[in-house]
Amino acid sequence: MHAAQIAEEYPVVGLDTTALDAARLLAEHRLPGLVVVDGQGEPQAILPASQVVRFLVPTYVQDDPSLAGVLNEAMSDRIAEKLRGKKVRDVIPEKFSEIPPVRADDTVLEVAALMARSRSPIIAVMDDGALAGVITASRLLAAMLRYS
Amino acid sequence: MHAAQIAEEYPVVGLDTTALDAARLLAEHRLPGLVVVDGQGEPQAILPASQVVRFLVPTYVQDDPSLAGVLNEAMSDRIAEKLRGKKVRDVIPEKFSEIPPVRADDTVLEVAALMARSRSPIIAVMDDGALAGVITASRLLAAMLRYS
Repeated sequence: MHAAQIAEEYPVVGLDTTALDAARLLAEHRLPGLVVVDGQGEPQAILPASQVVRFLVPTYVQDDPSLAGVLNEAMSDRIAEKLRGKKVRDVIPEKFSEIPPVRADDTVLEVAALMARSRSPIIAVMDDGALAGVITASRLLAAMLRYS
Repeated sequence: MHAAQIAEEYPVVGLDTTALDAARLLAEHRLPGLVVVDGQGEPQAILPASQVVRFLVPTYVQDDPSLAGVLNEAMSDRIAEKLRGKKVRDVIPEKFSEIPPVRADDTVLEVAALMARSRSPIIAVMDDGALAGVITASRLLAAMLRYS
């Protein structure tokens, strides 16, 4: 079984898409992450949903989570504003900007090795220079267990 | 908006569930992770799907991913065997065995702060001593953006 056989269609975003639009895509489609492509449609990075969550939590709350409870809920009104002012390229952590796509004919174990190493929730699959889809961790498990 | 309002029902596994059964649940339901409970139904840990993938990739392949390509596909026959011999408690990484559940009345920002700190794909929600459900990163984004 090869990568192309288990890849699924997935929305992508560009490096200059607003972080708000990326967050909306993640939220609406309940995705664990998005593939980020450049102007030529080439995958450049992975944007995990968990990373957008991290970006939204103020640093002082990450440092002292007990502060989260005392902050007014009205705060969340500022969240969309915070995302509107940023582009996808601004919120991608460095380690997720170096995850290469796999090739269509890579084996399931090659995809698993890349996912294990990169700790990315999704892996992009390229076929003949074009994005063929993405593979999530649970999809990969299904393939490894021959559920697909 | 509080944690209980956005929690979703989710399958759970026990510490002594076989890793194979946990992997099947993740694969069949396409989940990013599972809540692991003890005999009393108390959440003890989170088992991310990506962690099961990591567990399945032999250490020598993680160290040298180029080996993945040359390994015979027949290898994957050994995967189910590897999982059958382990229990969930054997494959939970230490850092995911210390993620506390949130309370039903915790705010969305409190859940986000815990997710940001723990880097867990899901957070368990307790209501009056019982598991009320789980919250994924994308569900949390939906709540933060008021999509829910």
